[in-house]
Order: sequence, then structure tokens, then C-alpha cells
Amino acid sequence: MIRIAGMTRDHQITKNININNLDRNAYKWIWVDFNQPTEEEIKHLDSTFHFHPLAIEDCIHRLQRPKLDHYEDHTFFVTHSIQQREDELHKEEVNFFLGENFIVSFHHAPSKEVDTVWKSLDKPPKDVENWDEYYVFYEILDDIVDDYFPLLYKLEDQLDKIEENTQDKSMNQLMDELFDTRYSLLDLRHTINPMRDLLYRMLNTHRLDGVMKRKEYFADIYDHLLKLSDLVTSNRELTADIRDNYLSLNSHQANNVMKVLTIITSIFAPLTFIAGIYGMNFQYMPELTWRYGYFVALGVMAVMGVSLFIWFKWKGWFK
Amino acid sequence: MIRIAGMTRDHQITKNININNLDRNAYKWIWVDFNQPTEEEIKHLDSTFHFHPLAIEDCIHRLQRPKLDHYEDHTFFVTHSIQQREDELHKEEVNFFLGENFIVSFHHAPSKEVDTVWKSLDKPPKDVENWDEYYVFYEILDDIVDDYFPLLYKLEDQLDKIEENTQDKSMNQLMDELFDTRYSLLDLRHTINPMRDLLYRMLNTHRLDGVMKRKEYFADIYDHLLKLSDLVTSNRELTADIRDNYLSLNSHQANNVMKVLTIITSIFAPLTFIAGIYGMNFQYMPELTWRYGYFVALGVMAVMGVSLFIWFKWKGWFK
Amino acid sequence: MIRIAGMTRDHQITKNININNLDRNAYKWIWVDFNQPTEEEIKHLDSTFHFHPLAIEDCIHRLQRPKLDHYEDHTFFVTHSIQQREDELHKEEVNFFLGENFIVSFHHAPSKEVDTVWKSLDKPPKDVENWDEYYVFYEILDDIVDDYFPLLYKLEDQLDKIEENTQDKSMNQLMDELFDTRYSLLDLRHTINPMRDLLYRMLNTHRLDGVMKRKEYFADIYDHLLKLSDLVTSNRELTADIRDNYLSLNSHQANNVMKVLTIITSIFAPLTFIAGIYGMNFQYMPELTWRYGYFVALGVMAVMGVSLFIWFKWKGWFK
Amino acid sequence: MIRIAGMTRDHQITKNININNLDRNAYKWIWVDFNQPTEEEIKHLDSTFHFHPLAIEDCIHRLQRPKLDHYEDHTFFVTHSIQQREDELHKEEVNFFLGENFIVSFHHAPSKEVDTVWKSLDKPPKDVENWDEYYVFYEILDDIVDDYFPLLYKLEDQLDKIEENTQDKSMNQLMDELFDTRYSLLDLRHTINPMRDLLYRMLNTHRLDGVMKRKEYFADIYDHLLKLSDLVTSNRELTADIRDNYLSLNSHQANNVMKVLTIITSIFAPLTFIAGIYGMNFQYMPELTWRYGYFVALGVMAVMGVSLFIWFKWKGWFK
Amino acid sequence: MIRIAGMTRDHQITKNININNLDRNAYKWIWVDFNQPTEEEIKHLDSTFHFHPLAIEDCIHRLQRPKLDHYEDHTFFVTHSIQQREDELHKEEVNFFLGENFIVSFHHAPSKEVDTVWKSLDKPPKDVENWDEYYVFYEILDDIVDDYFPLLYKLEDQLDKIEENTQDKSMNQLMDELFDTRYSLLDLRHTINPMRDLLYRMLNTHRLDGVMKRKEYFADIYDHLLKLSDLVTSNRELTADIRDNYLSLNSHQANNVMKVLTIITSIFAPLTFIAGIYGMNFQYMPELTWRYGYFVALGVMAVMGVSLFIWFKWKGWFK
Ligand SMILES: [Mg+2]
Ligand SMILES: [Mg+2]
Ligand SMILES: [Mg+2]
Ligand SMILES: [Mg+2]
Ligand SMILES: [Mg+2]
Ligand SMILES: [Mg+2]
Ligand SMILES: [Mg+2]
Ligand SMILES: [Mg+2]
Ligand SMILES: [Mg+2]
Ligand SMILES: [Mg+2]
Ligand SMILES: [Mg+2]
Ligand SMILES: [Mg+2]
Ligand SMILES: [Mg+2]
Ligand SMILES: [Mg+2]
Ligand SMILES: [Mg+2]
Ligand SMILES: [Mg+2]
Ligand SMILES: [Mg+2]
Ligand SMILES: [Mg+2]
Ligand SMILES: [Mg+2]
Ligand SMILES: [Mg+2]
Ligand SMILES: [Mg+2]
Ligand SMILES: [Mg+2]
Ligand SMILES: [Mg+2]
Ligand SMILES: [Mg+2]
Ligand SMILES: [Mg+2]
Ligand SMILES: [Mg+2]
Ligand SMILES: [Mg+2]
Ligand SMILES: [Mg+2]
Ligand SMILES: [Mg+2]
Ligand SMILES: [Mg+2]
Ligand SMILES: [Mg+2]
Repeated sequence: MIRIAGMTRDHQITKNININNLDRNAYKWIWVDFNQPTEEEIKHLDSTFHFHPLAIEDCIHRLQRPKLDHYEDHTFFVTHSIQQREDELHKEEVNFFLGENFIVSFHHAPSKEVDTVWKSLDKPPKDVENWDEYYVFYEILDDIVDDYFPLLYKLEDQLDKIEENTQDKSMNQLMDELFDTRYSLLDLRHTINPMRDLLYRMLNTHRLDGVMKRKEYFADIYDHLLKLSDLVTSNRELTADIRDNYLSLNSHQANNVMKVLTIITSIFAPLTFIAGIYGMNFQYMPELTWRYGYFVALGVMAVMGVSLFIWFKWKGWFK
Repeated sequence: MIRIAGMTRDHQITKNININNLDRNAYKWIWVDFNQPTEEEIKHLDSTFHFHPLAIEDCIHRLQRPKLDHYEDHTFFVTHSIQQREDELHKEEVNFFLGENFIVSFHHAPSKEVDTVWKSLDKPPKDVENWDEYYVFYEILDDIVDDYFPLLYKLEDQLDKIEENTQDKSMNQLMDELFDTRYSLLDLRHTINPMRDLLYRMLNTHRLDGVMKRKEYFADIYDHLLKLSDLVTSNRELTADIRDNYLSLNSHQANNVMKVLTIITSIFAPLTFIAGIYGMNFQYMPELTWRYGYFVALGVMAVMGVSLFIWFKWKGWFK
Repeated sequence: MIRIAGMTRDHQITKNININNLDRNAYKWIWVDFNQPTEEEIKHLDSTFHFHPLAIEDCIHRLQRPKLDHYEDHTFFVTHSIQQREDELHKEEVNFFLGENFIVSFHHAPSKEVDTVWKSLDKPPKDVENWDEYYVFYEILDDIVDDYFPLLYKLEDQLDKIEENTQDKSMNQLMDELFDTRYSLLDLRHTINPMRDLLYRMLNTHRLDGVMKRKEYFADIYDHLLKLSDLVTSNRELTADIRDNYLSLNSHQANNVMKVLTIITSIFAPLTFIAGIYGMNFQYMPELTWRYGYFVALGVMAVMGVSLFIWFKWKGWFK
Repeated sequence: MIRIAGMTRDHQITKNININNLDRNAYKWIWVDFNQPTEEEIKHLDSTFHFHPLAIEDCIHRLQRPKLDHYEDHTFFVTHSIQQREDELHKEEVNFFLGENFIVSFHHAPSKEVDTVWKSLDKPPKDVENWDEYYVFYEILDDIVDDYFPLLYKLEDQLDKIEENTQDKSMNQLMDELFDTRYSLLDLRHTINPMRDLLYRMLNTHRLDGVMKRKEYFADIYDHLLKLSDLVTSNRELTADIRDNYLSLNSHQANNVMKVLTIITSIFAPLTFIAGIYGMNFQYMPELTWRYGYFVALGVMAVMGVSLFIWFKWKGWFK
Repeated sequence: MIRIAGMTRDHQITKNININNLDRNAYKWIWVDFNQPTEEEIKHLDSTFHFHPLAIEDCIHRLQRPKLDHYEDHTFFVTHSIQQREDELHKEEVNFFLGENFIVSFHHAPSKEVDTVWKSLDKPPKDVENWDEYYVFYEILDDIVDDYFPLLYKLEDQLDKIEENTQDKSMNQLMDELFDTRYSLLDLRHTINPMRDLLYRMLNTHRLDGVMKRKEYFADIYDHLLKLSDLVTSNRELTADIRDNYLSLNSHQANNVMKVLTIITSIFAPLTFIAGIYGMNFQYMPELTWRYGYFVALGVMAVMGVSLFIWFKWKGWFK
């Protein structure tokens, strides 16, 4: 679906504009939204707007890196919107063409952020005459970046849960969740870092006067991306710390288990051996006929067992 | 609470100024402190001072990264003050608006550093006429950064304790404390590094002439932040070294425990087996009827045990 | 084989040009392809084109790093084309000399990408008069870089398979495959990163006006190389994560195995010892003559075994 | 103690100058050394020389990072001198104020390097008229940096000893020494890297014309610091390699110990079980009455034991 | 030995020049080679050529970092030549002084590369008149860098052998070889990276017009150093990968060994216990007198053993 909004010369926002009889000069600026366009509708990018073939190719093909490309009379932006569905992050491209008095947004999937801004046009504020195509661009971009935060906070909550392990999950499961969280952070970084670099380029190029005019607004988005990038990096470090902590505790526990095994074996192996000796059936074994042979044997075994126990205790194996 | 101090034209510092009948021209400079402001009081940021909505938004919302933003007639600063309560680091935002002859400080939590400077206004030095709004800013910032040091030194002390382990804690507990220390260092880094970058920007922009005028003072704060950043980095490396050291000792100890187990088993398994053979009840077992069968068996077992012991010794397993 | 194509003054593309009677002035531009040249043919680089001896040396010798070298009247490019044969990556050099109205391509191995572009000359589009030697260069380079993607996607698929391990392979085999994938990624990085830097240099030098003229096209290739470089880096990180995950699960499993061993040994060692005691053949062992001695012994053993079992359960060793 | 040396207008070096009746115009240049100054003497920094309060503060307080600060009419330098006492590195600050025709050195601890240069003034060379305050500065700085080398070489020797372990120390002890060496390297880096950056700044600022005049001499010190920084980095890497090597050998050895244990257990457990069976006291056990029952049993056990042994051999467990 | 070659005004190369009656104006350029000079000969650096004392000091003292130093009328270069003798890398310094129409080479050890170029002077090519002192410099430098390649290729071959382990060496030995290879790579990096930076500086300074004149030649050496630096880095990464792979396989194998041990113990411990029970000598043990007691006991034991075996199989412990 292609929907078009425009601001008329007397600062009214109208939405009933049709792509086929679009007169761009009748409006101060227009916003054309390619919302899940059909193949037929996509052709308007070329036939109506004459965008650069490489930009159109980037619209059609699979996920690009966030970036901007300057072409002769328009600039092309690739951005990523991220949603979480059933514990998986889904990235969707939202692309923009900005030029003299127009903005074209393009997205194969429905975009919550674009819809929100589209609806907000119905209730324009008093200073609506200051609006232009870069205002629309800012509003959508701001929403897209704001929507990264809940995803990251959710990952932080997961890490907290893993670290405290209040639900007493098995190590196996915890390691798996940790791995998934690490992976999601890696995945997020691949959107956040190029988005941050994109905003940096937008703020430092002199070819986008719409950005220059409201520099503090776009700098506010850049700010958020810096914060996000910091959070991703330090959460990745935190996952590594948690894993190393688990591993060292695990190795320590293994050590203790092995100590128990060794103590048990060390105490009972010699005792059982002595019992075995007096279980032998030799005809001539003098001790067997002694009056207190049995009790002497028991005594020797008790002394042996207790000595070994004390020796291990003294060696500090019970700590 | 909003409290206001101002320097009159004759270099007197007065503190009984009310926000509602504030005449800024009557003073050489004023300092307005929004100390845990109510929602009502916060509105003065917009209604009285006309600060930029994005800066006001940053004041209201949750923890920002330390930064500065230039707006048309004021500059907005976000800084972090850190306190330690019950072994946890608490970060509080202290924000500043600086403009022509005024400084506005804003903090949701009470700020020890702001209070200290506020009190110092009561006993102004002789050169008080050199004071201006940037002097107040420097004094608070200097105190905030100075207060990072004891936190870091405390973490260093913790590391020393962990490394020497004089209290003979269990490995389990040590690893946990190490993890917490690492986490606190990570957390501190998230304040110190952006604060360092903020000071760097302040020193290298030409838009803050109040900073230019006392460059060596702000450079002194930058200096401290460089030192702090170095300390955090190398303490993080140190924690990794300590952990690796523990792990390798642990793995070495496990090795030794296993050697004990193997030696015990290797010596007693064959001996017990031989005892088992002569414990069998076959009717025809010639050795059983021998006169010295029992003593031969004991002798064979002794030789066997001692040989195995010597063999392990010779293999170096007792080292 | 040396094959030559040229565009005549009337924008016809002809392919029947012989190196020995080549009149360069008769053409708007020519493309000379040294396709698996013989030693004899290689001499034309010097005798016919007078290229710089260092560039010719780089053509002849073993695999260079992708790069460009400016010489007096031509620029020399080294690029890598990668093919996969029998699970191994094979890199082949494809070199280019670009100068006033000519492009010379040089490759010891057959090149799919060069062949594709060579064939495309037979069906020139309408705007063929805009073609020049840089257009040929762009087309080949674009194909070479596009051909990196399937290789990387295949490695990503391998990683997915390793991570999910649906075919239930042994750990041994998985680690081996992981190692191979890591190695291939390292190998790929050695082509992709220098290629990326090469494109960056091409876009930022002012000595290649053919690149300047179609900057957006070469920037599109650079874009792809940025994306590829990102993918390689994050896939390397992912392999490390997978390996660490395996290792920690392995160590956890070892822990569990050892617990089973310790429980079994701890329960049966004392029981077997008691049985051994009453298997001794002392003549005077009062318990042996008791009426219920046997049942008491069995009872004691049962209580002992069950108690130990409960104790281990209570210690949480069965989790 | 404050000691002062000065060069008179006729190029004589005199040392009997008193701080209280110091006439700076009488000398081409003077060197004032605050050698372990008393609190009273420190006040001269302010009262006699009028140095900046921040610089004086840095002199008094605890260890600063090496750095330089430009003030209006003097430059302040913090440098670190390192000595080794009883296997511990001790860092001492040596600070300098350089200005028009004077150098002031300041150190709380006695400084071998300052003393050496102080003594060298007694035997001035022929070209003594070329000397100035920067010459004194260069000589001390050069000595300070030269004294880092033996410390680093000693650490390298320690690493060699640890790696070869000729004294046959226990793993425990080796790991401890390795940890200490790593720590000392980390500590050294904290002096060497900021010192290197300090020299870099000195060589690249245009505000120190005394450095400009003998650039090659200060560049020679920078050179040494570059070399030192390289050595520290690669020795840190080397310690990590040594530790990883130990760990892998340790884990390999543990593997072998466990194999011995498993082989012994696997061979004797079934044999002992068989002996146990024929040690049972059932009244009706036909094998017991067989003529060759005992020998058959022995034979079966021998075959079993040897088979298991061969099987483990064939599995490669003895390698 | 000092040997001198010079090009006469009529482009003849002569080698019979004596240092003591050297008339530099008689030659277009001269090359003076200090080949393993005696202390007496070294003095010529100062007395004949008046080189800077710091450069002469660098010649005499122990191994410097590769670098260049500009002095008033000459430039001083330190380079490293590496040879392999008995599996150890030996670095030798080859130093150069370049100035107006002269090159001085200086090396304490014999230099294969210098000798090669020295000999090549006997058969000068036709374009010998284009030769100058920088040509000699280029030729030696090119040979020195070309000689790094076989060393690195040998290390790569070693890594291949370690990775495939065709000679079936023990893990112990493999880890040792891996460690040595890693060390050699670290050592090589310490020559290659500063050499690379040296060439970079040579290509980017404007003070060496001899380098400017044949920029493509020196850039070719830089190219090789870039490639070498890449190879060193990725081979270091590869060694880490190989080690991690070994470690994970080792830990996996340990796991399997422990499983065998646990299975054996778990099966035979209860069986041997049961045999032990019926080996007790209580007078009243009803089962002993049962007609089929023995066979029932055997049956129970068989069922038990087989059940445990199946249970372990079902748990997947045999995979
Ligand atoms: Mg797309
Ligand atoms: Mg926002
Ligand atoms: Mg918004
Ligand atoms: Mg904001
Ligand atoms: Mg961070
Ligand atoms: Mg706030
Ligand atoms: Mg203060
Ligand atoms: Mg301070
Ligand atoms: Mg202070
Ligand atoms: Mg200071
Ligand atoms: Mg550090
Ligand atoms: Mg080639
Ligand atoms: Mg193409
Ligand atoms: Mg492409
Ligand atoms: Mg394409
Ligand atoms: Mg594209
Ligand atoms: Mg990345
Ligand atoms: Mg001090
Ligand atoms: Mg000296
Ligand atoms: Mg020196
Ligand atoms: Mg020296
Ligand atoms: Mg440091
Ligand atoms: Mg030197
Ligand atoms: Mg290095
Ligand atoms: Mg030397
Ligand atoms: Mg230098
Ligand atoms: Mg050569
Ligand atoms: Mg070469
Ligand atoms: Mg060559
Ligand atoms: Mg080359
Ligand atoms: Mg690389």
C-alpha cells in the first residue's frame, strides 16, 4: 500500500493524495509511505521518483547494514527496526529517501514506528508550520531507536536472573540461556553500532541541511545510540564474567567431589584388604586361632581408619 | 527545593533570593540549585529559564551517559556522582545548565558535593570578585570526581584481600567476591570513561569561555579522570589474573588429589584380588595346604605393594 | 590466451582484435584479458604495454595482498577471487592495469567473473556509449565481491548445524568442524579486509577519475565489503562462544559423572568392608554364632546404604 | 634540603647559592633541587617561585601519572623514577618546573639520578657554555629512563627461569612467581606508557624551545621508551603463553593419571568379583568340587585380565 | 673490515678506495661498508664522517628497535636482519647512514644481504648511471625483507605439522612445539612491525628525496612488510585456535575415560558386595542351605549387571 500525506501551502495536512495524480508543487512537502508495497507499487520508486537504481536495489534485496548514500538529488537511508516475537529478535529494514520537499519511507514489513507517526499527523500541534520532511524523518528515527531500549533492558533482566539463579535451574540450562543472551547481544550490536555510525555521519556531513537545522534533535538520538552501544559492550563483558565464574565454581566443585571419592577409597581400600587377608582359607594361619585375634584385627582396622581420617583432616581436605 | 544564590554588583554573595521574583539583572551571576525538586518546581526549567525541551527531558528521565549539549543560549551538562551504600555503588545524576551569568544545578537525590560548595559560599575568600558561575561549576565537578577515588581505592583493597586471602575463605566465596569486584569496576568504568571524554570535550571546545579562562583547573580534573581510567583498566586486568591464577592452582590441586586416588587404588586393587583368590572355597587348592602358604602369600603381597609404591615414587608422582 | 575487446569510434564493440597488430588509437577504449597466459604471452605486459617491472613481478609471483599501486601512466590492482572446491577455499589472483582508455586483466586461473563480463559484451544495452574501461572494471569487481557472499553464508549454515547438532555427531567431530570453520573465517578475513581497504582507497584517492565518475557504484561494492567484514568478525566471535559453551557443558558433565562414581563408591565401599569383616575366618568371632547375627548385619548394611543415599540427596548431588 | 647550582655570566658553575638571598639575574641559569624538602622548604615553591597552586598541590600529594602542564610562565613535569628493593618495585615521583633560565627539581625521596647529575656539575666538559637548564633536565630524564631497563631485564630473566624451571620447583610456586611477574609488568606499564606519551607530547609541542633545540636527544629517550613499551607488552603476552602451556600440560597429565586409574580398576574389578563368587559359602556350588575348578578359575581370570590389558593397549590408552 | 666502493664521474664503479685517503669529491657517490669493524675502525664514524654521537652510540650498543633518525646532514637507519641457525632465530642489526652522495652501512655480524649487493656491483647493468646511494640502500633493504619470508613459511609449515600430527607425537611434545612456534612469531613480530612502521615513515616523510625518486620501489618493500605483518597476526591467532582445539579434545577425552571408570565401578561394586554377603561366615544364613541358592544368587547378579549396563547405554554414556 502506498499512502501519501502532504502539507498544503496554508499549512493544512492532507492525507487523501493519490500517487497517480500527484502534483508535488501543490504542497510545501509530502511524505510517501511504501507500506508493504506490491511489486507493482515498488515500480513507482523508479517511474515516479526516478531514484537511483542502486538505492532501489537496496530496497528490494535482503537486509543491508544501516547506512546513508548521497545521490544527485536525494539521499538514501537504510535503518533497522527491531521487534521481539517469541523470544527471538526480528530485524526489519525501514528505508528512507529524502530530497527537496519530500520524504519517502519504504518497508516490506508493517512498521509500528511509521504507523505511530502517521497517526500523529491527524492531530497537528500549533507550530505545525515548522514541520517539514526532516521532522517526519526525525520522529520515525527517534521512535525506532527508542524501541531498542526495552529489548536491551529485557536482556539485562535475563542476565540478572541467570546470575542469581533464583529458579534453581540446572547448569546446563543456565549455560544455554547465557549463550542465547550473548548471541542476542551480538545480534543487537550489529544494528546499534552501524546505526550509531550512521547518526554520526548525519551530524557531521554538511549535505543534509534538514539535519543541520535541528541538530540538537538528531544529536539526542545519537546520544541514545552511544548509551546503547555502551550497554551492549558491557553486557557482553558481563556474560563472559558470569560464564567464567560458573566455570571456576564448577571446577572447584569437581575438585571437592574428587576429594570425597579419594578419602572414601583411601580409608576403605586398606581396611577391606585386611579383612580379605583374614578371609583367606590357608590351613596354617596362626592369627586365626588366637583368642583375641578378631578383636585385635578390628582394633587395628579402627586405628587405621581413624588415623587416615585425621590425616586427611590435618591436610585440610575437608575445607 | 529550589535555592538561589547570587553575587550582587558590589561582590556580596546573597542567598535569600526567591525564584518567583528573581531579577537576573540585579546580580553579576546567580546559582540556582534544584535540590530534589517537586514536579511543580521542575516546571520552572521551562517557564522561568526556557531551557531546551530535550535538556529538560534528560533531567527528568532515567540515568543518562555523562555528556554535554550545546543549545542556543545555554549548555547542558550531565554528570554522575557516585556513593557507596551497603557495599553497592549508587549513581546519581547531577545536571547543570550554564549560560550568560547563571548556573543551574539539578539533582533528584541529595548531593553531598553540591551541599559542600553551597556552604562554602558563606565564607567567601578575599578574591571573591573573581568568582563567577564557572567557578561554582568547577568546584562541584572537582568534588564529584575527587569522590570517585575512595571508591576505587576500596576496590583495590578488596582485591588485595582476595589475592592474599588472609581470612582463609573458601574458594567459592573468593570467586564470588572477585566477580562482584569485577562488576563494580565495570560499573565504575561506565561513569569514569564518559566523564573523562566529557572533560576532554570541555577542554577542546571553544564555545565555553568560562572553561577557557581557567583551563588549568579543568585540566586538573581531566588529569584525575585519566588516572582513574588507568586504574580501572589495570584493576580489571588484575582481577582476570587473579582468577586465572586460582583456576590454575585449582586444576593443579585436582591433579594431585587424583594421583593420591590412583596410587591407593593401584596398590590395593591387586593385593585385595590376591586375598580374594585364597578366600575362594575350591576343594582342591594346593597352596592352601602348604606349610608356609600363608606367609608366602603375605610376602608376595608385601613385595607387590612396596614395588608399586617405589614405581610411583620413581615416576615422580609424589612431587 | 590473450583476448581483446574494443569499442570503436561509432560505439560498436568488437572482439576480433589481435595483440600483434593492435592499434590503440582506433578504439575509444580496449579491454585486454590475459586468461591463463603462457610465458610467451606474459612478455606482452612489458613489450607491448610497458608496464612497470614491479607490477609485472607481482603478476607473476605467488599470492599478493589485494592492493593498488599508482605508476606513471597506469594503476595496478591486485584483487582476490575465491572459489570453493571440495570444502576448501581457493583464492585466485585477478589483477588489473588501468590507464588512459584501456584495461588489462590478468589471471593465471580461469575466472568465472571475467568470463561473465566478457560474455555480457555480446549483448550491449542501449546506453553502451557510456561504457568505458572503468565500467568493465566495476562489473568484474562487483561480481568478484558478490561471489564472497555464498561462501560466508555457507559457513554460517555450518555454524548453525554445529550449534544445533541435529545429526548427533560426537563432540570430537563437532570440535573439528568448528576449528575448520574458524580457520576458513580467518582465511576469508585475509581477503575481505584488504579488499575493503582497497575499495576505501579507491573511493578516497583523486587519481582515479573513472572511479570518481561512478562513485556511487564503487561505494556500493565498498558497502558489501563492510557488511562482509562485519559478518566475518561476528561469526568468529560466535565460534568462540560455541566452543566455550561446549567446554562448559563438557566440564559440567564431567562433574556429574564424577558425582555418580563418588556416590557408588561411597555407598558400596563401607558395605563391602562390613561383608569382608564377617567373611574373616577367626575362630572366635562371637557375632557369627548369634541367632540373628546375619539379619542384624544385613539390617545394619541396609540402614547404612540408605542413610548415605539420603545424605547425598540432601547435599543436592542428584541435581 | 634545598641546594642550588647556577652558571655565572662567565660560564662558571657555582653551587654555594642560598635560597634566601638568591639573585636570579646574576646567573645565566640556575638549578634548584628540592631534595626531600621539609614542609618549611616546600613553601618556597609558592613564596619564592610563585608556581601555580595546582602544580604545587601535585608536588605534595600522592603519586600522580607522569604528565606535563603548561602554566603561564613555567611548565610543570611529573616523572616516575623506579627502584627495586627486596623484589618489590618502588615508584618515586621526581617533578620538575622549567621556566625562563631556571629548572626546579622536586622529590620527596632521595633520587640516585638527580644526585648523579648534581655530581657531574663538578667536572664540567669544555663545551659547558652550551649547557642550560634543559641540558640538566635531559640528563636527569635520560638517567631515569635508562634505569628502567635493568628492571625489565630482570623480569625477563625471571620469565626464562620460570619457563625452563631448572630448579624443579612445584607448579604451585611457579604459578605464583608467574603471577608476580605479570603484576610487576602491569605496574611497570603504568609508568612506561605515560612516560612515553609525555615524551611524545614534549617532542610535538612548540612551547618548549629547550626541547626543540636538542630534539634528537629527547627523541633518543622517546626511542628507549618505545622499546620499553614493546618489551612490556610482549612479555605480558609471553606470561600468558607460559601459563596456558602449563595449564594444557597439567590437564594432559590429569588425563593420563585418570587413564591409569581406569585401567587398574577395569582389570581388577571383574577379577575380584569372580574371586568373590567362589568365596561364597553356598552349600551347593558344583564348581567348587571339580577336580580342576581352581585352575580353571585361575585360567579364566588370567585370560580376562590379559584380554582387558590388550584391549586398552589396542585402544591406545598407553600412549 | 671497512670496504669502500664508489662511482667515478664517468660512471665506473671502483672498489679499491682506502678510508685513509678518501676524497669524496672524486666520486658521484660512495658506499662505505663497516663489515664487523674493529674498535679502531669504528672510530672513523666520528673522526672521518662526523656522525651524530647518539647515532654512533646506537651502532655500538645492543639491539635497537628498527627506526630512522634525522640529523643535520645525514639520516640514520636501524634495520634488523634475521637468520635461522639450529631452529633459533638470530637477529642482527644492519645500520645505515645516508647523506649527500654517500651511504655507510654498519653491521657487527657478517651480513649475507650486504655481501650479495656488494658482489652485484662487479657486474653493473647498462643503466648503471641511474644508480646512486639510495639504489644500494634499496637493494640491501629489499634483500633483508625478502629473507623474512622463508622464516615465516617455515613456521607455517611447523603449524601444519602440529595441526595434522602425522608423526603421532605425544600431546606433551606438540604443546611444546606450539609454544615455541608462538614464541618465534612473537619474536618475528618485534622486527616486522617496527620495520613496517619504518618503511611507512620513509614513504611519508619529504626529507628523503632518494626515497621519493623511487617511491614505487620502497612501496614494494612496504607491501611485503604489510603482508608479513598480516601473516604473523593470523598465525598467532591460528596457534591459539590449535591450542584451544587440543584442550577441548583433551577435556572431552578425560570425560570419556571417567565414564568408563564410572560404568565399571557402578556395575562391579554392587555385584562384589553381594558376593561378599554370601562369603560371610554367619552360622545361620538360610539362603546358603537352599538347593538353588547359588544359582539364584548368580542369576540376581547377572540381572543386576545387565540392567546397569542397559541403563548406562540408555543414558547415552557409550556415545
Ligand atoms: Mg531491502
Ligand atoms: Mg528518543
Ligand atoms: Mg519521539
Ligand atoms: Mg535525550
Ligand atoms: Mg563500556
Ligand atoms: Mg535525569
Ligand atoms: Mg575542591
Ligand atoms: Mg580534584
Ligand atoms: Mg582538588
Ligand atoms: Mg592535580
Ligand atoms: Mg592499563
Ligand atoms: Mg601473481
Ligand atoms: Mg554485477
Ligand atoms: Mg555487488
Ligand atoms: Mg550488486
Ligand atoms: Mg547496494
Ligand atoms: Mg561487529
Ligand atoms: Mg607528589
Ligand atoms: Mg645520561
Ligand atoms: Mg638513555
Ligand atoms: Mg644514554
Ligand atoms: Mg596503563
Ligand atoms: Mg639511542
Ligand atoms: Mg609488540
Ligand atoms: Mg647496535
Ligand atoms: Mg625517532
Ligand atoms: Mg633485490
Ligand atoms: Mg622484495
Ligand atoms: Mg624484489
Ligand atoms: Mg611487489
Ligand atoms: Mg589479519
